[in-house]
Amino acid sequence: MKYSHLFIPTLREVPADAVIASHRLMFRAGLLRKLSNGLFAYLPLGLRSFRKVEQIVREEMNAIGALEIKPTVVIPAELWKESGRWDSMGESLLRVKNRLDNDFVVSPTAEEAFTAIVRDELSSYRQLPLALYQINTKFRDEVRPRYGVMRGREFTMKDAYSWHTDEKSLDDTYQAMGRAYRQIFKRCGLSVIPVRADSGAMGGSGSEEFMVESDVGDNTLILCKSCDYAANVEKASCAPDYTVDAALNTPAYEKIDTPNVKTIDELCGFLKMTPASFIKTLIYRAVNVELDLSSAPGCGKLERKNTSYSEVFFAAAIRGDLDVNEVKLASILKAGEVILASDADVVRLTNAPVGFAGPVGLANLPLIADTSVSAMNDAVTGALSKDLHYKHVAYGRDFNAWKIDDIRTVKAGDKCSLCSAELYIKMGNELGHIFKLGNKYTRSMNASYLDENGKSQIPVMGCYGIGIDRTLASVIEEHHDDAGIIWPVSVAPFHVIIVPIKYDGEVKNAADKIALELTQAGIEVLLDDRNERPGVKFNDADLTGIPWRIIIGEKNLPQVEVKRRSEKENRMIDADKAAAEIAQKIWDELGAHSHEVLNT
Amino acid sequence: MKYSHLFIPTLREVPADAVIASHRLMFRAGLLRKLSNGLFAYLPLGLRSFRKVEQIVREEMNAIGALEIKPTVVIPAELWKESGRWDSMGESLLRVKNRLDNDFVVSPTAEEAFTAIVRDELSSYRQLPLALYQINTKFRDEVRPRYGVMRGREFTMKDAYSWHTDEKSLDDTYQAMGRAYRQIFKRCGLSVIPVRADSGAMGGSGSEEFMVESDVGDNTLILCKSCDYAANVEKASCAPDYTVDAALNTPAYEKIDTPNVKTIDELCGFLKMTPASFIKTLIYRAVNVELDLSSAPGCGKLERKNTSYSEVFFAAAIRGDLDVNEVKLASILKAGEVILASDADVVRLTNAPVGFAGPVGLANLPLIADTSVSAMNDAVTGALSKDLHYKHVAYGRDFNAWKIDDIRTVKAGDKCSLCSAELYIKMGNELGHIFKLGNKYTRSMNASYLDENGKSQIPVMGCYGIGIDRTLASVIEEHHDDAGIIWPVSVAPFHVIIVPIKYDGEVKNAADKIALELTQAGIEVLLDDRNERPGVKFNDADLTGIPWRIIIGEKNLPQVEVKRRSEKENRMIDADKAAAEIAQKIWDELGAHSHEVLNT
Repeated sequence: MKYSHLFIPTLREVPADAVIASHRLMFRAGLLRKLSNGLFAYLPLGLRSFRKVEQIVREEMNAIGALEIKPTVVIPAELWKESGRWDSMGESLLRVKNRLDNDFVVSPTAEEAFTAIVRDELSSYRQLPLALYQINTKFRDEVRPRYGVMRGREFTMKDAYSWHTDEKSLDDTYQAMGRAYRQIFKRCGLSVIPVRADSGAMGGSGSEEFMVESDVGDNTLILCKSCDYAANVEKASCAPDYTVDAALNTPAYEKIDTPNVKTIDELCGFLKMTPASFIKTLIYRAVNVELDLSSAPGCGKLERKNTSYSEVFFAAAIRGDLDVNEVKLASILKAGEVILASDADVVRLTNAPVGFAGPVGLANLPLIADTSVSAMNDAVTGALSKDLHYKHVAYGRDFNAWKIDDIRTVKAGDKCSLCSAELYIKMGNELGHIFKLGNKYTRSMNASYLDENGKSQIPVMGCYGIGIDRTLASVIEEHHDDAGIIWPVSVAPFHVIIVPIKYDGEVKNAADKIALELTQAGIEVLLDDRNERPGVKFNDADLTGIPWRIIIGEKNLPQVEVKRRSEKENRMIDADKAAAEIAQKIWDELGAHSHEVLNT
Repeated sequence: MKYSHLFIPTLREVPADAVIASHRLMFRAGLLRKLSNGLFAYLPLGLRSFRKVEQIVREEMNAIGALEIKPTVVIPAELWKESGRWDSMGESLLRVKNRLDNDFVVSPTAEEAFTAIVRDELSSYRQLPLALYQINTKFRDEVRPRYGVMRGREFTMKDAYSWHTDEKSLDDTYQAMGRAYRQIFKRCGLSVIPVRADSGAMGGSGSEEFMVESDVGDNTLILCKSCDYAANVEKASCAPDYTVDAALNTPAYEKIDTPNVKTIDELCGFLKMTPASFIKTLIYRAVNVELDLSSAPGCGKLERKNTSYSEVFFAAAIRGDLDVNEVKLASILKAGEVILASDADVVRLTNAPVGFAGPVGLANLPLIADTSVSAMNDAVTGALSKDLHYKHVAYGRDFNAWKIDDIRTVKAGDKCSLCSAELYIKMGNELGHIFKLGNKYTRSMNASYLDENGKSQIPVMGCYGIGIDRTLASVIEEHHDDAGIIWPVSVAPFHVIIVPIKYDGEVKNAADKIALELTQAGIEVLLDDRNERPGVKFNDADLTGIPWRIIIGEKNLPQVEVKRRSEKENRMIDADKAAAEIAQKIWDELGAHSHEVLNT
């Protein structure tokens, strides 16, 4: 294709809000323009790469037997009311009313639509397992969209859903999806970090996130310096850094006056101790708690509506040098959210000012203690009274928790639970996510099938998403230099750019001939036929990042210069042989994936 | 691909609201399911055909140099406010407010978004002409969606837009689009009727609609029995069926008493005349009139806001046997809409009860007369008084019109304006539409470029749409029988279905071998591996309409039966030769379009 026939508005200036490389380069190289905050238009060059990412995803989904369908983007609210997400989803869900006053949502994800389609066709266990997917427009009403398409409002997502008779079958598809995802990112030239993740508001257990490292990533990742342990901080665990010494001979606990001591630091200074000797006790308010609390302290009279308690207060105890991980806490409580209680609630529930909560004598609240607390046999704690603490407090002797569990936020320097090496932190962006959903949607939306014995059963479900825009932007994040993009061949808008020094006479003939030969060999060629100075053409070629460049000048003929965008050096090659040699190298690089996977 | 791996829920029953063949068959053959009124999901088989229609459209757009881009589906309302359509578009526009109280529209069409993208990049005449397109989700909030995807709420449209320095360049692209559209429909196996159409609310002049005949079509088409004249009734004209006889010696007009005569029929009976002797005068209210009315009768004091009058009353006169075409009338007045005036307005403006309006003495309203009136030299008219008419009224002697123009609704039996043969009527559905938009959007949205002389100019614009879903449904409308769909090879979900009588032993081996050979030849094969009776398999093969069928039975081996879906007869062929022969025939049929058009 001739450069002059395309629409590639390259820029020297970049928008002030473009702080990351992919955002800057997608604008500068003429791939993308902004329509509004968080809403972007792909221009021809950008769309070519976008479609290649889509096609890679499609091929790998097809290869594992997932079937593509296409529901609408605008979905009737009735389906979201059935699943309950119409109410629970919050404000990021874009809700619409039409002229007849019917409610709709602009899909952010499509568990409901897919389950609605499947439940109407599902009758027998023989139809399962079934995996369906779409590659379609999504909308999330981000309050602060930023980083270009990395966090836009409208985006394209591949979302797949699967239905199964049992956990084993779900796990087979889940594992196949995980392999397909690794293959997709590999084909796109991306280094991803697969991490165990909290499945958050999606419900169910068993999930894996595919992250790419990014300074501006939304996610904090905990990684091991030695083994391949990787986890989202929301769910990361670490090796215990304590030993339980049951034989310790601790004196009976006693009150100590701590006048005007309000922080742990002040307390440590006052008592000449380290934070690790202190048991920190925090009061939390949890909403929509689905855990059964009928036998929990102080909860006997709580009313349960449907399957959940709308509001419950808890105490959480943890060693003083550690922080409570609220996502872990919410997960243990099966709560929609946990939030630190207000000062007024703390005063009411502990009968003491804020800063003096403690586990001893705290009878009216369920206490959840981190496993670190179970090893504390001579601790300082708040004494539930102003300016008073206890010392010599021993867990198991002076108090017990309602639950002991891992509610600790893992930090850099903690030890790996698998190999005991040191853990460190990276920031990451999530490109893909695979989940075992369980029967949350199939149950609430009444999807069922008859098993071998003719008995009605509810299928279990998985869901699997990849952000197409984010994946594309991440390729640029990983493959660029100061001059521009360095596309991997697999997702480059064109494979080869031909740059004639002056598109005229012998040079034009040679350029046209090589372009034709390459095109006939199935290679995508951009021919820079513009009447511009060579420097302008080279700069645009660097910026747009086409992987192979053939430079044709009168002086060099019958040889031409060949350069890879990723390398500094040019080399000379006979013009007659250029097309065949380069086409072969490109096909080798594209490999078996160049043709759609056959699936008879 | 194996049938058992797909998801093809064929049905015997069809939804009660499926009154047209494509709607019924898309449900019965498992191509489509309904999510809600006017919202449909394509299932795997349907999506395969849908994508082929998309790809044909894409190839033909690329072949004429149009460039694909991808704006968002959700578009900021600011752009629609700039063009004025936020106010003028009416209730079919789906408007959305997000959490920050920003207004958006779910795109029904994208003149604004495309113009916004182009204006920011456009500086010089050298960048023009430019043609961009998208194939993307659209939404129109239909009050009564029906006929399946033929008239859904959400649908996929290819919409292209072009920008030009002059009318000549616009016309070149407009003609190229017209040729591309003919090629697209031909490749899809569709018989389309290209008709001149009114460009309605889109503004501008020069437009062509591509219609398919349909009993439930939205459009009334006027066609000539002899030549290729074809027009939407909204814009159709016909040959004059009168001669102007200036020499007629008509007596002076005079009042006649017509007590209790209210309708034209009653008047004809009373006066023993035919409706063709009567001049019918109707009072209309027109809104958003852009025509300059500063010298029109009775309009001197009207206030003009921006470029339009918000409400103006007009009189329209036409021969009594004819009907006024309100679309033509609105077009002449450059009005958003014309509506018959209320009885109260008629009484106020004519000083007479409803039924006695007439052109003589009607001084306070601009009168628009149909050309048929200009030939009436001895007519009966209302006399602007209760129970009174005039006779012997002559146009040009007793009254003059402010404007004489064609405002007649053409009917079956009228004569063709090109060849004078008889005109007839068909109902049709619009699949595509090409328009010359002029500068409506470029002017209102401030798009400009510098011409050769460095002077700022406003580009002229064209727009060109094709409904993908409608095109697909229309293929089924044209290609089906009682047993099911008969796909043209170009848009069939698979080219070949292999039906082993029993998928086992030698038969299985032969089926697998032919499937492999066909697949290796680039043919798309569906292998019915199900453990079903042959009758079930044949019925499903008929219903899903795969163009080529290979039936493999133990008794016939080493021969197999080959059948085209469109033909009744089978024939026998050596199993060894089947794949090569059928692949060749399919490639011949797909022709040059099987591979994407190269465009270096």
